[in-house]
Amino acid sequence: MPVTVAVDATGADLGPAEVARGVARAAQDGIHVLLYGPAGPLKAALAELPPASIEIIDAPVSIAKEADPARAVRQHPHASIVQAVKAVADGHAQAFVAAGATGAALAAGMSELGRADGVRRPAIAAQIPLPGAEVTLLDVGANATVRPEHLEQFAFMGRAFSQAVVGVEHPRVALLSNGEEKTRGTDLVREVHERLSKHSGLGFIGNIDGSAIPTGVADVIVTDGFTGNIALKTMEGVSTELFHLIKKTVMASNRGKAGGLLLRAPLRGLADTLDPELQGGAYLLGLSALGVIAHGRFSHVGFEHAVRRAGIAVEQDLLGLTLRSLESAGALRVRRKRSAPTDTVVVHDA
Amino acid sequence: MPVTVAVDATGADLGPAEVARGVARAAQDGIHVLLYGPAGPLKAALAELPPASIEIIDAPVSIAKEADPARAVRQHPHASIVQAVKAVADGHAQAFVAAGATGAALAAGMSELGRADGVRRPAIAAQIPLPGAEVTLLDVGANATVRPEHLEQFAFMGRAFSQAVVGVEHPRVALLSNGEEKTRGTDLVREVHERLSKHSGLGFIGNIDGSAIPTGVADVIVTDGFTGNIALKTMEGVSTELFHLIKKTVMASNRGKAGGLLLRAPLRGLADTLDPELQGGAYLLGLSALGVIAHGRFSHVGFEHAVRRAGIAVEQDLLGLTLRSLESAGALRVRRKRSAPTDTVVVHDA
Repeated sequence: MPVTVAVDATGADLGPAEVARGVARAAQDGIHVLLYGPAGPLKAALAELPPASIEIIDAPVSIAKEADPARAVRQHPHASIVQAVKAVADGHAQAFVAAGATGAALAAGMSELGRADGVRRPAIAAQIPLPGAEVTLLDVGANATVRPEHLEQFAFMGRAFSQAVVGVEHPRVALLSNGEEKTRGTDLVREVHERLSKHSGLGFIGNIDGSAIPTGVADVIVTDGFTGNIALKTMEGVSTELFHLIKKTVMASNRGKAGGLLLRAPLRGLADTLDPELQGGAYLLGLSALGVIAHGRFSHVGFEHAVRRAGIAVEQDLLGLTLRSLESAGALRVRRKRSAPTDTVVVHDA
Repeated sequence: MPVTVAVDATGADLGPAEVARGVARAAQDGIHVLLYGPAGPLKAALAELPPASIEIIDAPVSIAKEADPARAVRQHPHASIVQAVKAVADGHAQAFVAAGATGAALAAGMSELGRADGVRRPAIAAQIPLPGAEVTLLDVGANATVRPEHLEQFAFMGRAFSQAVVGVEHPRVALLSNGEEKTRGTDLVREVHERLSKHSGLGFIGNIDGSAIPTGVADVIVTDGFTGNIALKTMEGVSTELFHLIKKTVMASNRGKAGGLLLRAPLRGLADTLDPELQGGAYLLGLSALGVIAHGRFSHVGFEHAVRRAGIAVEQDLLGLTLRSLESAGALRVRRKRSAPTDTVVVHDA
């Protein structure tokens, strides 16, 4: 049976037709897609492409731009993202992809799918593209405030993701801190360091500081959603600013322009390997099915990879791998009472 | 009367003679320097330079590489850094400069100088060099864990620094968070946002996320020492990694090499404007006198600028400006009892 992925096509800056074009490429390779969005533009876009295994479900209501996503999910049960996630909850698909709107995807995921049994908190994993390596950083925004047991689980969730989806056989797992020494950091970080050190099968290599994030010394980097978001955004900001400064410097002289002309092709090759669209977006881990959040500004390339990666996660049984590794480490949450209130989760855009 | 700066020459990777060479340049411009370190090498270095107003105090014991700086300060009262800070405490100098060893400088500062009256915690301020702007980020490592009233004070301390030392007349002060909305962030960040919003004279422009740190949209960025350290180190790591990747890409083809040759001069010009040595290092704010922590890997250029900036801070009365602005904002700490235990500070290397 082919993998089925439910896709919300409404949150993309370039419009639903762009999402359809990306999705169609992945669908031509054997993934079945349920595509939620305004039927008109979606049909028109697909009509121009080779046939693929895509079902369009007319869902013109988008909550991608709502300021309060949790409330928007409650108020708009027919919104495209809610329907797409519901399709997974109802067993019609095994993973979902949302364009843009991390907050809405997280809120819909929590309300329609809920957390995987034994998982305390969902986490958002981002991938830092490096030539020859892909570093997974989590959490980058689902939880501004966490407890040690949350970060402990994130380490296993990130490791399973790195193995199943990124393809790293023995991921090196690190904890982000303000220095390598285990005595550094907040009380939280010190306690998490101690917990992770006890899991011999985790591949924990200790603490790293911010300068080591982009070196590839660790495959999985664990942190809370506040710190992770700041690290990720800082990386994006510095890259953008540096490329901007270099371009400005190159263009400021004729000599520079001549040099820039010669370097255009090789540097474009470098930019291609660093292209975030190839990672498909951010990954919503810890729900009872995987969610992929493609960036709103992505072109069809990003959406294609988002659907492909969702397919890989299902084929490789990311969820099963996650739960088995948590279980064997004794890190699954035991629910004492079925009716006990569950952990709350801070829902906002990453 | 000229400004007197006490300098610990022992923590530099290139040795005390390199510190002496930098210090001498600043001293030739009218700053008086008390130079602590091994007298032999220091005298030999100065003998080769034009005369300058420098007193060498033989202090061969260095604690720059000690793992537990607070303990090292207690155990080695004759260590060069302790003597340099003591000279400030005793009124022989008005500011100190330490090479390397943030932790030792902070520990010596706390034990010999103590906090300025009404200041709750010292903070370490770093400057992000940008062409046409200099952004001050604090705290980058003195306090891994803070309370709202600490960050509130850091905002004023950073603003006074930006005005007096960096020369920004009306600094725009921002709070670092995982998004611009005031509802984002941890409980700490939300409370600090509310406090800062109430200070009409502060120049508070609200929250910024990590991507805005290197854009220059804010002149002063306030955060806790854990997050600030990770943001700063992440910036350093990404810059290093990107320049490394670009260089590798350029050198991989003859076409690239030819282009690189043409771009060498303009890109060196860019690198010069981004040179961290021009900022003199990190700034230890909130003690009863300013401390400048030059990076251990600095050449004489960095030490020269560290001493120059220390001189500017004294001339511009950074400390007075800080305390007056805290006082007029009602943000000074009132000591209820003289004998009450003071706040503790996490002492470690930034």
